[in-house]
Amino acid sequence: MSELTGKKALILAANLFEESELLYPLHRLREEGAEVTVASPQGAKVTGKNGYGPMGVEAAIEDASANDYDVLVIPGGFAPDRLRAHDATLELVRAFDTAGKPIGFICHAGWVPISAGIIKGRRATSVSVIKDDMVNAGTDWVDEEAVVDGNLVSARTPADLGPWLKALISTVRAA
Amino acid sequence: MSELTGKKALILAANLFEESELLYPLHRLREEGAEVTVASPQGAKVTGKNGYGPMGVEAAIEDASANDYDVLVIPGGFAPDRLRAHDATLELVRAFDTAGKPIGFICHAGWVPISAGIIKGRRATSVSVIKDDMVNAGTDWVDEEAVVDGNLVSARTPADLGPWLKALISTVRAA
Amino acid sequence: MSELTGKKALILAANLFEESELLYPLHRLREEGAEVTVASPQGAKVTGKNGYGPMGVEAAIEDASANDYDVLVIPGGFAPDRLRAHDATLELVRAFDTAGKPIGFICHAGWVPISAGIIKGRRATSVSVIKDDMVNAGTDWVDEEAVVDGNLVSARTPADLGPWLKALISTVRAA
Amino acid sequence: MSELTGKKALILAANLFEESELLYPLHRLREEGAEVTVASPQGAKVTGKNGYGPMGVEAAIEDASANDYDVLVIPGGFAPDRLRAHDATLELVRAFDTAGKPIGFICHAGWVPISAGIIKGRRATSVSVIKDDMVNAGTDWVDEEAVVDGNLVSARTPADLGPWLKALISTVRAA
Amino acid sequence: MSELTGKKALILAANLFEESELLYPLHRLREEGAEVTVASPQGAKVTGKNGYGPMGVEAAIEDASANDYDVLVIPGGFAPDRLRAHDATLELVRAFDTAGKPIGFICHAGWVPISAGIIKGRRATSVSVIKDDMVNAGTDWVDEEAVVDGNLVSARTPADLGPWLKALISTVRAA
Amino acid sequence: MSELTGKKALILAANLFEESELLYPLHRLREEGAEVTVASPQGAKVTGKNGYGPMGVEAAIEDASANDYDVLVIPGGFAPDRLRAHDATLELVRAFDTAGKPIGFICHAGWVPISAGIIKGRRATSVSVIKDDMVNAGTDWVDEEAVVDGNLVSARTPADLGPWLKALISTVRAA
Repeated sequence: MSELTGKKALILAANLFEESELLYPLHRLREEGAEVTVASPQGAKVTGKNGYGPMGVEAAIEDASANDYDVLVIPGGFAPDRLRAHDATLELVRAFDTAGKPIGFICHAGWVPISAGIIKGRRATSVSVIKDDMVNAGTDWVDEEAVVDGNLVSARTPADLGPWLKALISTVRAA
Repeated sequence: MSELTGKKALILAANLFEESELLYPLHRLREEGAEVTVASPQGAKVTGKNGYGPMGVEAAIEDASANDYDVLVIPGGFAPDRLRAHDATLELVRAFDTAGKPIGFICHAGWVPISAGIIKGRRATSVSVIKDDMVNAGTDWVDEEAVVDGNLVSARTPADLGPWLKALISTVRAA
Repeated sequence: MSELTGKKALILAANLFEESELLYPLHRLREEGAEVTVASPQGAKVTGKNGYGPMGVEAAIEDASANDYDVLVIPGGFAPDRLRAHDATLELVRAFDTAGKPIGFICHAGWVPISAGIIKGRRATSVSVIKDDMVNAGTDWVDEEAVVDGNLVSARTPADLGPWLKALISTVRAA
Repeated sequence: MSELTGKKALILAANLFEESELLYPLHRLREEGAEVTVASPQGAKVTGKNGYGPMGVEAAIEDASANDYDVLVIPGGFAPDRLRAHDATLELVRAFDTAGKPIGFICHAGWVPISAGIIKGRRATSVSVIKDDMVNAGTDWVDEEAVVDGNLVSARTPADLGPWLKALISTVRAA
Repeated sequence: MSELTGKKALILAANLFEESELLYPLHRLREEGAEVTVASPQGAKVTGKNGYGPMGVEAAIEDASANDYDVLVIPGGFAPDRLRAHDATLELVRAFDTAGKPIGFICHAGWVPISAGIIKGRRATSVSVIKDDMVNAGTDWVDEEAVVDGNLVSARTPADLGPWLKALISTVRAA
Repeated sequence: MSELTGKKALILAANLFEESELLYPLHRLREEGAEVTVASPQGAKVTGKNGYGPMGVEAAIEDASANDYDVLVIPGGFAPDRLRAHDATLELVRAFDTAGKPIGFICHAGWVPISAGIIKGRRATSVSVIKDDMVNAGTDWVDEEAVVDGNLVSARTPADLGPWLKALISTVRAA
């Protein structure tokens, strides 16, 4: 019933995050028994792109280590634009990927793996508006509701939240 | 895997709804295959108590019938204050209850079953601040993360979202 | 002309207060010569339910004593939901009532005397949406523009502000 | 007790009005039995300078006639900057003055009688920041909490609301 | 003195535009005598990323033709994310480029020429955060305050507004 | 090309400033090579009247000296109402004027030279709504897009930004 008991998840937040893409995995992973931490640059409060907030977070991305978590989740909105400009975030993403730990990203969050340099040759999806950026970065881009390629679990929009979390939970269990 | 395929859910919204208490069941029930409709008084757009919105909805509560749905969900925030003053909402709640169909409510949403007159003698929970109103209305109030009494499935706060949805999904499956 | 010269009034505020229900008694009691203090939990700034603010206050409710004031005023909106969850507020309300000092409340503010446990068997009114909570708490609820029962002076909505203040001023003078 | 029964008052509103300077006379004059109408240019909804609103009004200034009212009230904030640029407002102010009907204005509202051309040689006050404009327009400016010169009743800031309304009510009764 | 008399400029706007990157070219090109039109998808009002607005525009992008203008300007912010998903915008950008007419873009606006497919092999700059997207799309990306490559005139951030406009004005004059 | 190299400009800001009237001279003077500083009372962040901000500034007006700058710029909106009530601003304006240094003001900013006492007998313009205040203060008011009278350079509204800056730049160069 609780498939992720004992697992730890880290969700990355920044201003202009897409609310449902953060709130859904937050509570969904908790429902499965995972311990979930939300982190932002400097641990600052964040406000969503539809006005939700300011929302406090539990940690600063600068202080987070891939060693301490079993899965990384990157919600969309315009927060990924801030996160891809943030060196500590990019290093963290590379560390998760190097360790083969699951990374979930959705919508505009594809910008982060692009700038982290981990997406080339990988199968993934994104919101259609950044398909050009994904393809130009060498992604094997497909138009599916949830795409798993090894440790990468991607989805397109909030309409894919259910399939995305199912795939993400399975991937974490199997990791 | 998809436990609610073929089921239809109705979520009630009004201004100042608690965002996570609406967004989570919306996507969680969809993840299980349910068809979910969000309705508000007059079908008007709604804005959450933390600033999320304006969010469009699919239906007007005035046009909704308990015959067309398998489960009713009432998120908290201050939206329940508007909903309990709305006759069509109260009639709808009574119709779900009379039919023995599952009704999920959380946090401040307990005000709605109070004003619908269906909570007397029933076991339920709520956010602690309205415990007095619940108890005075005759509720057998308990301090648990998810409380099921027949078709009524209640919870306290967003921290209970996971247990609440697990209980609600089970109740709908068993109905 | 100045009926309350030498009298001291305390108005309770919290976020989402109804603006006219705070601003009107504030200036009306001052017009009669009273010294008026606005207090909130921790003395924090407050913003009204229609967007007014942030408004500074003069005192923290935690620091207020019924001994120092002649009358307590509780405006409506959703601020009473915060106040009824605030122990220092409930103790203060009980202290005013025990001392027989006038307490004015309007609209949703009836929730506060409910949770303070002072409304049972008393004659009072409120906004219609919380009538159920008032009645269930044992209030002798009536639908009148201003209701005086000993030291309790209640009213329904902003449309009753005039009659409410007339009754409140008379009650303070007679106290 | 009700000193203005049968009297009709008109309050002028525009965006960025000072909330307490509109809400206080609105309810204060009603307390005395007056029938009060709030009007704005084109009858549009208005929002106050501290964020209150949008607030609906009952009438358009363009449709108002001095013949239909016993007193005109002009709140402050930055609304007077809009009103003094509005010809229908200036004509209305002149009509009230020509008829010798009471005009109350407070704070920044002094800009309106300046542009209506009725303030020269009259005794009045205002918020200190526009004293230069008042004096340059020929006002006999004094620093008092409420100033009555015939039908003109002026005050400085929200701290003067009580004395201002007392003076205004007396002036209307005597008119 | 007026270097662009008789010239017509079109500025593209969408929600979350960077205010200074729209307002500066708007007034700067007008200062040089150009006739400037601001257009948005469907001609809808737009609000900037720092809260400016809602601002009305003069035209719908869908109705605009490259034949009617001498220069196209694309401000940054997150508006370019909306614009690159808008087919009429992409067609318009390609039409300006095919005609060899000047196109100015700044900051995040580089996303639009990427999705219009006109940036490959061209020399240009952008805000550093989207450098990866620019380079992956085949841009000859350089870190300079204003970059001219034929009809393309690009800049990095609001700090480059002066050099960008100087370069843009020169390019339009020379076209 | 860069007409103001080596020159220093000071722009005065306060809450409710008109955004284009601050952002345009800020970047326009920089385009010409000037070093531009924005200052506000106490160096506090400011928000524009159309919602732009909060915007940080570089200096406190209280710390600024006319000796350190070659030109003073006062944008409009309702910020001038705050500035004219701020003694340090008025002293600064008088110091620039006494030194014969250029002062640019636009729209509602005319209120500041009125309260600084420097406008009597000078030729200038303003937004039409404050024409009465300008004329009553002894201004030789004219309805032109940019008006130069010695060191004073005034304009009416954002539509005059181009001519205003041309005139201001010429005046600074000639000073």
